[in-house]
Amino acid sequence: MPFSISFVPEIRFGENLHETIGSAAKAFGAHTAAIVIDGFLAQSGLAGRIVAQMQAEGIEARVFSDFAGEPKIAHVRHATEVVTGAEVVIGIGGGSALDIAKIAACCAASGEDAMHYALAANPLPKNPLKKIMVPTTAGTGSETSATNIFAGPEGKKLWIWGAETKADLVLLDPVLTATLPANLTAWCGMDAFIHAFEAATNRNAHAGGKFYAHEALRLLTGALETAVKEPDNMAARGKVLLGSCYAGIAIDNCGTAVAHNISHAMAGLAPVHHGLATALGFEATLAWLVEADTADLHAAAKACGLVDAAELPAFVSGLMDRCGIVRALPKAFAAIDAQMLATEMKAPENQPMRRSTIRDISDADIARFAASIMSLPKAA
Amino acid sequence: MPFSISFVPEIRFGENLHETIGSAAKAFGAHTAAIVIDGFLAQSGLAGRIVAQMQAEGIEARVFSDFAGEPKIAHVRHATEVVTGAEVVIGIGGGSALDIAKIAACCAASGEDAMHYALAANPLPKNPLKKIMVPTTAGTGSETSATNIFAGPEGKKLWIWGAETKADLVLLDPVLTATLPANLTAWCGMDAFIHAFEAATNRNAHAGGKFYAHEALRLLTGALETAVKEPDNMAARGKVLLGSCYAGIAIDNCGTAVAHNISHAMAGLAPVHHGLATALGFEATLAWLVEADTADLHAAAKACGLVDAAELPAFVSGLMDRCGIVRALPKAFAAIDAQMLATEMKAPENQPMRRSTIRDISDADIARFAASIMSLPKAA
Repeated sequence: MPFSISFVPEIRFGENLHETIGSAAKAFGAHTAAIVIDGFLAQSGLAGRIVAQMQAEGIEARVFSDFAGEPKIAHVRHATEVVTGAEVVIGIGGGSALDIAKIAACCAASGEDAMHYALAANPLPKNPLKKIMVPTTAGTGSETSATNIFAGPEGKKLWIWGAETKADLVLLDPVLTATLPANLTAWCGMDAFIHAFEAATNRNAHAGGKFYAHEALRLLTGALETAVKEPDNMAARGKVLLGSCYAGIAIDNCGTAVAHNISHAMAGLAPVHHGLATALGFEATLAWLVEADTADLHAAAKACGLVDAAELPAFVSGLMDRCGIVRALPKAFAAIDAQMLATEMKAPENQPMRRSTIRDISDADIARFAASIMSLPKAA
Repeated sequence: MPFSISFVPEIRFGENLHETIGSAAKAFGAHTAAIVIDGFLAQSGLAGRIVAQMQAEGIEARVFSDFAGEPKIAHVRHATEVVTGAEVVIGIGGGSALDIAKIAACCAASGEDAMHYALAANPLPKNPLKKIMVPTTAGTGSETSATNIFAGPEGKKLWIWGAETKADLVLLDPVLTATLPANLTAWCGMDAFIHAFEAATNRNAHAGGKFYAHEALRLLTGALETAVKEPDNMAARGKVLLGSCYAGIAIDNCGTAVAHNISHAMAGLAPVHHGLATALGFEATLAWLVEADTADLHAAAKACGLVDAAELPAFVSGLMDRCGIVRALPKAFAAIDAQMLATEMKAPENQPMRRSTIRDISDADIARFAASIMSLPKAA
């Protein structure tokens, strides 16, 4: 079966690699750099230390950290202003920071507004700024993907997709993930696990993508629980971070499926952490999914150390238990019912993830999955 | 343990992908292209068909095919003349064609002679021409490596190394390998197998490289014998081609070891196919090597479907038997003795492969290995 694997950026892995960001920027020949970094990381002193590294290399560095939560067009535009004139862009943080940095590296190169590229309205510039991506959460895989999400002027979720947005260099430093609280470690880790699982088992799965996805499943299965329970265990943190990166490569080539249909639909209704929403959607659909009984499902189960796919639902629920994931929705979902979720799951922008799922999803299936999700307690 | 994985070019895999070379060049925005292709392939009509593809896309294409055997500086210079002025370079053939194309893409961009870059005398140009690599043998892994070999003005083997020489796009088309004779399929396939094995087990082995190397071992172990015995079995040809490509990624990051010390030493004495020489060197040293009893050796054995590393020597000899590899040296080795081979194995340019080997190689070991190789019959 034919397949293609988009280019994979240079990946460096190791403890305290964040101390080499300045020299990495220097190796790109940069004299000016822009750092897009999560606000709380900037306040922790990390931004200042990286600016100092840059100065030691003779690089003038500016910082943009004025954002929080899901990226909005205003964040992207502000980041683009800061990035314009720099030769290299460094994204440090969770998926939001990385997405903003990747988009800004394109917009700053062309002078165009992000809306010019949203939903593939126009081709991306061929020569974006050089990009170094340094994830501090282990989940989104944005460091190795070509997909970038932000909310448009009317609050609607938009995407910019293209190889031009991909990183040139990825630095994976498990030390940067050590301060991630246990619940975020678990939610992000499950997001990565589900990226790998869905990429390896959906209708677009292929040998090239499965190669990365199965390794991600092996790494995450082996280390996620330990990373949650022993936050300073750098070996476990490292495996989860590398697994998340490989899972990002897998979705970059093969995409996701029903669990992401549900989590994107939930995000359209009320604020909820993407990893938590995806984990809840995955658990609500997995027993139904594995009835498809495909070779890909069995291969994914084997990568998790299981004998066959029938063991997956219990295994995943057990993993979520052991990682302390509370099955509950944020309070904001109190005003939302199953019908509203079902409608959102059928919205046009969520159909690609419905169609890519290995089983056909009927409207009755959607009603059932939505009811299952909305029957969860609404917690704080 | 820290590691880094150099960028991996976009890889497309599928039967008859060579029919898309013209559209791939077009997608790079090229109006002019240069094709570096093995002479016998050019004569088979393949070059003409690709030129016609290019013309259909509005691309003016020139062809360089005036070379055979190991690349010499004259070939590289002639290729650079043909390539100069083109926007994209397409390499089609065995490792020689690909190496020449990759070097010419750099030299044509800068206007410098290849000797300017040999042995890392000067940094490579930052903006080489775009490169599409289409291997027609499954062995060298040149399509995914940064190493390029040619003979200098005095006949001495030289190398040009650097990420700037790497492909932007790799097209893996098993159909192009179907006419490879059985002995070349076996020799090249063993070269790929040994690339993967040595990269996964030498002193520079790391998690990133082993990930690619183990997949290569799985693919090659499963398919090489079938590809040799059933030349039109495209599934087997495809697995060997993909395995060779992944093995190329593995050596690009972790290098080789003693078997390549021996084959490079042999090449310094008389003409011999690189894959055959490497296979002979591997078989002569493997029983000694596995006494090191490392975790990496056992993991490589497992990737070959074995229980542990002690099974490797018999397994490899059996695989070589089943692939019909005759243990014999070319006639040109009649005038060469073990002492000469040992001296060559100790030559400065072959020491990196000696030092990277997981066991220390004493001069007595070298004498023994050289005697073992030179005791082989000298055939036609």
